[in-house]
Amino acid sequence: MPVTLVLIHAAWHTGKDFETIANILRKAGHTVYCPTLRGNREEDDRSKIGLEDAISSVVDFIEENDLTDIRLVGHSYAGMVISGVADRLERRLRRIVYINAFVPLNGESLTDLVPPCHAAAFAAIADANNGALLLPFQVWRETFINDADIALARSTYDRLNPQPYRTVADKISLQRPLSEMSIGRSYINCQQDISLPHSYPWHPRLSERLGLFRLVELPGSHETIFSNPVRLAQAIWEAARD
Amino acid sequence: MPVTLVLIHAAWHTGKDFETIANILRKAGHTVYCPTLRGNREEDDRSKIGLEDAISSVVDFIEENDLTDIRLVGHSYAGMVISGVADRLERRLRRIVYINAFVPLNGESLTDLVPPCHAAAFAAIADANNGALLLPFQVWRETFINDADIALARSTYDRLNPQPYRTVADKISLQRPLSEMSIGRSYINCQQDISLPHSYPWHPRLSERLGLFRLVELPGSHETIFSNPVRLAQAIWEAARD
Amino acid sequence: MPVTLVLIHAAWHTGKDFETIANILRKAGHTVYCPTLRGNREEDDRSKIGLEDAISSVVDFIEENDLTDIRLVGHSYAGMVISGVADRLERRLRRIVYINAFVPLNGESLTDLVPPCHAAAFAAIADANNGALLLPFQVWRETFINDADIALARSTYDRLNPQPYRTVADKISLQRPLSEMSIGRSYINCQQDISLPHSYPWHPRLSERLGLFRLVELPGSHETIFSNPVRLAQAIWEAARD
Repeated sequence: MPVTLVLIHAAWHTGKDFETIANILRKAGHTVYCPTLRGNREEDDRSKIGLEDAISSVVDFIEENDLTDIRLVGHSYAGMVISGVADRLERRLRRIVYINAFVPLNGESLTDLVPPCHAAAFAAIADANNGALLLPFQVWRETFINDADIALARSTYDRLNPQPYRTVADKISLQRPLSEMSIGRSYINCQQDISLPHSYPWHPRLSERLGLFRLVELPGSHETIFSNPVRLAQAIWEAARD
Repeated sequence: MPVTLVLIHAAWHTGKDFETIANILRKAGHTVYCPTLRGNREEDDRSKIGLEDAISSVVDFIEENDLTDIRLVGHSYAGMVISGVADRLERRLRRIVYINAFVPLNGESLTDLVPPCHAAAFAAIADANNGALLLPFQVWRETFINDADIALARSTYDRLNPQPYRTVADKISLQRPLSEMSIGRSYINCQQDISLPHSYPWHPRLSERLGLFRLVELPGSHETIFSNPVRLAQAIWEAARD
Repeated sequence: MPVTLVLIHAAWHTGKDFETIANILRKAGHTVYCPTLRGNREEDDRSKIGLEDAISSVVDFIEENDLTDIRLVGHSYAGMVISGVADRLERRLRRIVYINAFVPLNGESLTDLVPPCHAAAFAAIADANNGALLLPFQVWRETFINDADIALARSTYDRLNPQPYRTVADKISLQRPLSEMSIGRSYINCQQDISLPHSYPWHPRLSERLGLFRLVELPGSHETIFSNPVRLAQAIWEAARD
């Protein structure tokens, strides 16, 4: 049965990075959207845009297209975004799916959910770059896309765009805990993802905040969107199908 | 070399659920039994049967068939059962194999080994159902058989039978620790099994109670018996072969 | 692009045990050395050789062959050895790769990095064997090579040689933390390796001492060198390629 999926990209990415996966799902008959968030568009002023702008851009997208019964999928930083969207548009959603993504409590920012040394590094980098958060190549190569060869690591790094620091530092406002929502909740964990250290992991540290949730795991790094899109598309389907 | 295996089913299941796997092992030449425990038979009064009845039913089965040199395999709740059987019939066993199964110390019940909130929910459900423990479908679908499609999740749920609460609440009596037994010990861990939360996991929290043991892992949920019987049969063989 | 790899074997092993993997990598065009450490050679007096001798034997090997731009790979105990080599020959190395290997801090011994009960058992065994550390077969079969059949478990056990206890009890001397070195660092984790218990694991407990590092994981036991050399060769390549 064809379904509707909305795929929300990670920090430094755009919706285009989800197109390979979207096309795999479209070939199976599904309707798939992968909009680019406010804050990651070419024209966006990185010093001004915050988390609320990013969330609102998805709320607007869904309302303008009058989408319903949606599987809403978020990767990494987009966990913050889809959590905010779910809080406002729960009636339009069927299920939310987190892919190695942040699961906030009310009043938390993304930087509250990473190791304190990471948060400090983010602040220093943004401070030195007029509010834009950049990712050093060696961090990308070793901890984001450790399963790729160097050519893919380089070509994908070249696709990245600066992330507005406020989108990761702003606290989220949620009316109620995600674990109490009436929609389905899934968590996809890429097993060799060390963008967060395994001593301070995505799963189960953040996933279990969802309460009753469906776990799907696959081999791969944080960036299986690039290193293994076929396998990630399958995982998204298994997480979202009902 | 053909061997003898006795496969003991989980709570809510019967021996029939192991038949697919038993047949795979039989085709390789082995002798395989999968009896249904007291407490899970059609005629059983769910309000009256306890853990001791379940254990005794396997002891009786083994003695009546005069089985020796047995590989005794238990899934989930059956970890309680095979632990009790091993304590009494050690001389008839070659190895005990736990599949995401409880490993008790003397004086513990299954409910002592799950998160306290699960134990409280079990008690409340049994209280409302005349001593029968039922499993809500959403819990089954999301945390027991998260790797299946919805059709398989539904058809397998329809096979389940009510579990006598006393079988999970009764304390076990063991003469000596399992880690001190002279028979081999193996633990099979299905890696996406979140019937126990991964923050409170099967392995290594319970497996390491076996002392020196052999670990075998496979991808899949708590119910790979249904979602991937071929792969689980292979894992059982690797765990039990010597 | 062809590269140079030096593969350093584990305790109880010799360089010959890496030959299958070396040949796979050689067929891809690379130059691969797998010397046998001092302490594991036939003529070595197990009561006299210590960690420093083992480290020096690799330093000498590299200098005598004037190797540069090396990927230096160490398995298990060899993590102690390659850490010492990297501390002295950093300029000759491109990357160090640990395969379920010890990552010491300055002043630590291997026995400081295993569970205290293991360390006590090592000392007692060596004491009873004139300074030679032996590995009981059941420990080998259940926790080192749990993914093999019994025939492979036996034939590989017969290849082992006594390990000089001082190589595992001697403290290492490092000029500076491995995490501060300018060369690349990778950690390969075989996921069913329970030679260290999963409650006291190789990864992330020891791997994260490397600071920024690349993680590669594969299914298999501590001895995938024997049970799955093709897959381990691939993992070594992914860990070492750039």
